[in-house]
Amino acid sequence: MKILVIVAHPCRESFNHAIAWKAAGTLKMNGHEVILHDLYEENFDPRLTCGEIPKNSEMGSEIKRHTGELAESQGLIFVHPNWWGQPPALLTGWIDRVLRPGVAYEFMEGDGGEGVPSGLLRGKRALVINTSNTPHDRETGFFGDPLDAIWKKCIFEFCGITDYFRKTFSVIVTSTHEMRCQWLSEVAGMVNDYFPRETG
Amino acid sequence: MKILVIVAHPCRESFNHAIAWKAAGTLKMNGHEVILHDLYEENFDPRLTCGEIPKNSEMGSEIKRHTGELAESQGLIFVHPNWWGQPPALLTGWIDRVLRPGVAYEFMEGDGGEGVPSGLLRGKRALVINTSNTPHDRETGFFGDPLDAIWKKCIFEFCGITDYFRKTFSVIVTSTHEMRCQWLSEVAGMVNDYFPRETG
Repeated sequence: MKILVIVAHPCRESFNHAIAWKAAGTLKMNGHEVILHDLYEENFDPRLTCGEIPKNSEMGSEIKRHTGELAESQGLIFVHPNWWGQPPALLTGWIDRVLRPGVAYEFMEGDGGEGVPSGLLRGKRALVINTSNTPHDRETGFFGDPLDAIWKKCIFEFCGITDYFRKTFSVIVTSTHEMRCQWLSEVAGMVNDYFPRETG
Repeated sequence: MKILVIVAHPCRESFNHAIAWKAAGTLKMNGHEVILHDLYEENFDPRLTCGEIPKNSEMGSEIKRHTGELAESQGLIFVHPNWWGQPPALLTGWIDRVLRPGVAYEFMEGDGGEGVPSGLLRGKRALVINTSNTPHDRETGFFGDPLDAIWKKCIFEFCGITDYFRKTFSVIVTSTHEMRCQWLSEVAGMVNDYFPRETG
């Protein structure tokens, strides 16, 4: 399988990077092809322009490459911190620019854009791995964990993805080396569950 | 009063811009000082860097200006479309970069960053005005309207703002000129309610 791994964290030594590399390494051990994008390292431009909005607008080479890889991939893994209940702007912008009409979803003939579209990412499996400095109970109880609805409902189900899993590791800022090692083992376990070694 | 108005939409002729200008005009009619930022027009850079994360890091002149204006303002108005249950990346990045520790919130002495901070934007009033192409019932019923939790819980209450109101206008893509005119009257009404003419 071809799996797209997207990581968005500004610090190269972040635990997010450790997670992404662990996921990528596990995928490779399982015989999959990995396309890894470190959006900060690549200096991805997150600004969707007015000219890019129409469905049939000409895409720049960077977006053309990302949309092509998305279409070819059977699996998607997103790794990012929870900032204000959202991904970092770099990943928000990847979503804005790459999950285009005609690539990630399309409206039915005669639908002016207000209806329920058809998802074009059907059949792909997706994992989201987040880090947070908010304890689990406060995230779900007080903040309502909006990232959960964003990924599962607004993005995956909208684009036709029904096979997904999301995990948040917290609290990062007070975590010990041992906890992080344990968490990376959990990352490998999730990846093995979702993208096992292909036999045959 | 000094009121900060932030608009994020890539198209200059967008209804978001009409809303922002209507809000700004109404504020001025009410005798307030308006600081209006069109984040796209200003080409705001939404990428929080690793070096900006520490509380005491040196801010660039652009962020210093934004944080200064935020501190001085008694009111905040954010105008943006609902994209994937989030603001456009440009505004997400403004949130990431401007709502800094020491500016928007601060942790208590001895708190390593995992606790409940003290909000530094206490006493400010805030309005959020969104546009959407999703009918209200589908937004709240299916998607769960994550933008509501993002603004009210993750941002405003986290930063100490308790006096806020959020309104979404939808469906934009099928709206008539008459509906938009009516919606702009509602914008003026909201602004008049929240930031009335000061007498005395």
